[in-house]
Amino acid sequence: MNQQQITAARQRAAAQLSAAGIILTPDEAVNIEVVDFGLQRLESEGLEIVTYENNDRYCAKELVLFPRQTCPEHRHPPVGDEPGKRETFRVRQGIVWLYVEGRESATIHARVPERSGLHYTVFHEIELHPGQQYTIEPNTKHWFQAGDAGAIISEFSSTSRDEADVFTDPNIRRVG
Amino acid sequence: MNQQQITAARQRAAAQLSAAGIILTPDEAVNIEVVDFGLQRLESEGLEIVTYENNDRYCAKELVLFPRQTCPEHRHPPVGDEPGKRETFRVRQGIVWLYVEGRESATIHARVPERSGLHYTVFHEIELHPGQQYTIEPNTKHWFQAGDAGAIISEFSSTSRDEADVFTDPNIRRVG
Repeated sequence: MNQQQITAARQRAAAQLSAAGIILTPDEAVNIEVVDFGLQRLESEGLEIVTYENNDRYCAKELVLFPRQTCPEHRHPPVGDEPGKRETFRVRQGIVWLYVEGRESATIHARVPERSGLHYTVFHEIELHPGQQYTIEPNTKHWFQAGDAGAIISEFSSTSRDEADVFTDPNIRRVG
Repeated sequence: MNQQQITAARQRAAAQLSAAGIILTPDEAVNIEVVDFGLQRLESEGLEIVTYENNDRYCAKELVLFPRQTCPEHRHPPVGDEPGKRETFRVRQGIVWLYVEGRESATIHARVPERSGLHYTVFHEIELHPGQQYTIEPNTKHWFQAGDAGAIISEFSSTSRDEADVFTDPNIRRVG
């Protein structure tokens, strides 16, 4: 992504948060993390993140998804003596379809991103509306997609260590 | 408090959250925790709490304060091998005056609750507006009060163990 694309995505995410009544400081708004996972197709596979706090005990973020934007399949493995990251997703705005390991759902509502189809392998669907939440256990494969209105998810978790995440798609680079 | 008072406080807290755009499930709304710390003067010293998640690694809550309502001074001591609870307060609505250990502020904006004055001993003031946040280190004495419009605080923290909290006021019973 070039700087113009990043700035545009930041402004769009900031507007979406503001419309949902979530207030950022000016400094937070201009520093929203725009993640395309190195795939160069942000609209399809990407995520916008505001990290409020990440310390050696806990972490809290807002995750913004544009309409039908998808966070690709990944898991949080153990790091050293610690189990992997556990995370609770609470939806604040929009609909989120979350997929985790387990019995495959008969039909799913998300559209698997075309160019990455082979790298989506878990299809146990959890549909989350505003006010609903789900906790993903450590080292469990998961991916998620917003509905047509986009979505905002509050993520509460143990310490985030993005560099340790394992993505199913070998083309993904989370950090750097 | 009698059941009628608890129900009224729940409804008031639910309306305040709703006005701020924070969506609860119906089940969460009717189960808001109303805490008067055993002091029987909720309007002055009390707190309304929605706990989204509390597990052995992290915790996330919304704290609702009515206008000028105060959460009394307390600290989170170590429990077993773990350091005390660390917590990040992020204000979502209203103004919060937070007091922690450290150099006493020349003037403070909160009004120390009259009937409990002796049990407030730390006066280093941090004023928080919506979008601003502050992290309170373990085992640090702190108390806080909302401004005239009440306040909503998102609390992100390590595991909550209310029964371990140490209040300055010996009359307080946190867990009844």
